[in-house]
Amino acid sequence: MQELHVNGSRLWETIIETGKIGATPAGGVSRLTLTDLDREVRDWFVQACKAVGCTVTVDEAGSIFARRPGKDNSRDPIAVGSHLDTQPLGGRFDGIAGVLSGLEILRTLEENEYTTESPLEIIDWTNEEGSRFAPAMLASGAFSGVYTLDFIYDTKDREGKSFRDELERVGYLGEVPVGNHRLAGYFELHIEQGPILEMEGQMIGVVRGAQGQLWYELTVNGRASHAGSTPMPMRKDAMLACARIADGVNRIALKHAPDGMSTVGLVELTPNSRNVIPGRAFFTIDLRHPDEQELLAMGEEADALVKDTAADTRTDISMVNVLNMMPMKFDETCVSVVRDSAQKLGYSHRDMVSGPGHDALYVARVAPTAMVFIPCEDGISHNEAESVNPEHMTAGADVLLHAVLEYDRRMSGAR
Amino acid sequence: MQELHVNGSRLWETIIETGKIGATPAGGVSRLTLTDLDREVRDWFVQACKAVGCTVTVDEAGSIFARRPGKDNSRDPIAVGSHLDTQPLGGRFDGIAGVLSGLEILRTLEENEYTTESPLEIIDWTNEEGSRFAPAMLASGAFSGVYTLDFIYDTKDREGKSFRDELERVGYLGEVPVGNHRLAGYFELHIEQGPILEMEGQMIGVVRGAQGQLWYELTVNGRASHAGSTPMPMRKDAMLACARIADGVNRIALKHAPDGMSTVGLVELTPNSRNVIPGRAFFTIDLRHPDEQELLAMGEEADALVKDTAADTRTDISMVNVLNMMPMKFDETCVSVVRDSAQKLGYSHRDMVSGPGHDALYVARVAPTAMVFIPCEDGISHNEAESVNPEHMTAGADVLLHAVLEYDRRMSGAR
Repeated sequence: MQELHVNGSRLWETIIETGKIGATPAGGVSRLTLTDLDREVRDWFVQACKAVGCTVTVDEAGSIFARRPGKDNSRDPIAVGSHLDTQPLGGRFDGIAGVLSGLEILRTLEENEYTTESPLEIIDWTNEEGSRFAPAMLASGAFSGVYTLDFIYDTKDREGKSFRDELERVGYLGEVPVGNHRLAGYFELHIEQGPILEMEGQMIGVVRGAQGQLWYELTVNGRASHAGSTPMPMRKDAMLACARIADGVNRIALKHAPDGMSTVGLVELTPNSRNVIPGRAFFTIDLRHPDEQELLAMGEEADALVKDTAADTRTDISMVNVLNMMPMKFDETCVSVVRDSAQKLGYSHRDMVSGPGHDALYVARVAPTAMVFIPCEDGISHNEAESVNPEHMTAGADVLLHAVLEYDRRMSGAR
Repeated sequence: MQELHVNGSRLWETIIETGKIGATPAGGVSRLTLTDLDREVRDWFVQACKAVGCTVTVDEAGSIFARRPGKDNSRDPIAVGSHLDTQPLGGRFDGIAGVLSGLEILRTLEENEYTTESPLEIIDWTNEEGSRFAPAMLASGAFSGVYTLDFIYDTKDREGKSFRDELERVGYLGEVPVGNHRLAGYFELHIEQGPILEMEGQMIGVVRGAQGQLWYELTVNGRASHAGSTPMPMRKDAMLACARIADGVNRIALKHAPDGMSTVGLVELTPNSRNVIPGRAFFTIDLRHPDEQELLAMGEEADALVKDTAADTRTDISMVNVLNMMPMKFDETCVSVVRDSAQKLGYSHRDMVSGPGHDALYVARVAPTAMVFIPCEDGISHNEAESVNPEHMTAGADVLLHAVLEYDRRMSGAR
């Protein structure tokens, strides 16, 4: 068969060009979901897909499905997707690289007059970021049966505008029932959003699955009193409890090395005054591990740490588990076509698990799924400074193309 | 000689009545310095002092001096003072109890037709709290030569209004040169703002001096990165550094027990997001000890702790010493007349050092000084919930009266 390759220059230019929609002075993109800027990039995307022969449908959650016919259109489509929305001060690649690589695949197939056995679909999922409407991955969550349509419609932004009203306002309240849509397979390319590939000099991450995550919100209730007149034995210092727990969960992660991770990313003290002993501390714990048993053990150790700290500091501490996502494994066939494609194309690669959440994690509940990671500079993401090497971008899209084509062949038994 | 006593009911009613100027719904007082409410209470205070035969002068820093003549008006006056300004959500007693006890002393002397040997003065110091114009104790600092007049005049509130302009606006830009004013002695009654007297069941704190204080501002510069994709060994976690230092300075205080104290009261993380490793932490350390050598040792230990933590966490940490107040001892004669008065009047008492700062700490630089503490409920202050037992209020004012009279006798050799 002919050796197809994506056009890396065209892909890169498309990324730079669409990055002007919501461009920030510091080189990033600010394109919150369902804003006028999001509508603008959606309209552009729909036209670009139609220009390569796609039919475009929109589901009730506003996700866009651009379909290119295959030889046998009774088959379930093979899909490639990600998201075009960004963080308030986001980068040019997070999500965007995945959707536009899908478009580049369609353009490559079109100019090479290559028709797949199964139809192909490129998907732009609504509100992956969750910055405007929480939680994140709202539309892929609805697609996968995690959230009901009522739940996502009632979600409101900080101004009180509902997800449904904003979908309607921007013209993307579609009629295709959400989730009533079978996929033969789903592939998502994404920047790593971490430093591992860059550090090891690898071009491609073959994503075998995702870490499990346990998120907690803790509230320490101590007693606010004067820093100059409250003897140490009489204190109920909420910050001391917070500090010991933050140090303690760090040790828990190190105990579950090399894959365990823990983060205390958010702390709010009350009254937060330099000469008042904090009476209250609100903070978060984020625990991650790719192995379910290890993750659950970390959670139990954190629970014991919190109880001990409450006793030691004479404070009351509530600990609420606000996210409980067990580790997941992607489909073995999907993962293997990604790995085989990287290998065949001569790109250095390593297997890895995803730390961040992605639409693919939800889609994997209802369709065979895998992901392709490419390096990003210094592991920086959710930041205007987000940066990708064009060579890595081309390699990732090429791996994505070949994975899709190989999967198409395997599904149809055409080989 | 006749046995004089303050009129506790009258004092209490005066506190309740003036507490209506700036009263908050939750039972506190919000009367920031040099606001219209501060002017209102100042005008009331001036009239009340004139009603008992005082002449009133105002110095260039806006502090009010109400003078009651003595038998020998060539003598330097003996002064009683504190402040009538409050925190934004302050209580009814902090500062106010000291000024109004002074007024009650004048009223008691007046109705008993008692004339002291030396003249007496009641002082309301401007801007003790420092909530509107930082730093705190601005006017007593200028009085004592700590701050220049230019410095305090240029101080601005958050709206950019200067201390001098606001003095002028409320009509309290006086003409008496600040600090050019000798005092034979200075006594200040204040609520303890801590729990010790209440816990021990003592009515009177005989304040022998003040703790030393070392305040620091620390900035940890780490690296913000994704909590789900940054392996533990690659992290530069600013919160981890902050947590270890907060726990460490707590141990330093305990090492210098029973008098050492340390507090991390204010923490601000950046970006302060639950799934981002904090790239920056700004926080404060407050170290206190009544012994200078011990305090300096605590500062050195904190410095070493910070250096070690920076190395261990691979972060850069700057540590700026923003307050350096060495311990001070009040005048022995002044302290003894307070102690003797409490003893003679049959009130339980204990010697103690002040944790918080007070105008008396600055005045002590230029005049013999002592303080009287009374208990406050649960040690709570700088809070609308601030509460004092009326019996303790009466006892404190009575001790203040007798300390002043005894000091007056000793100064004049009249005994």
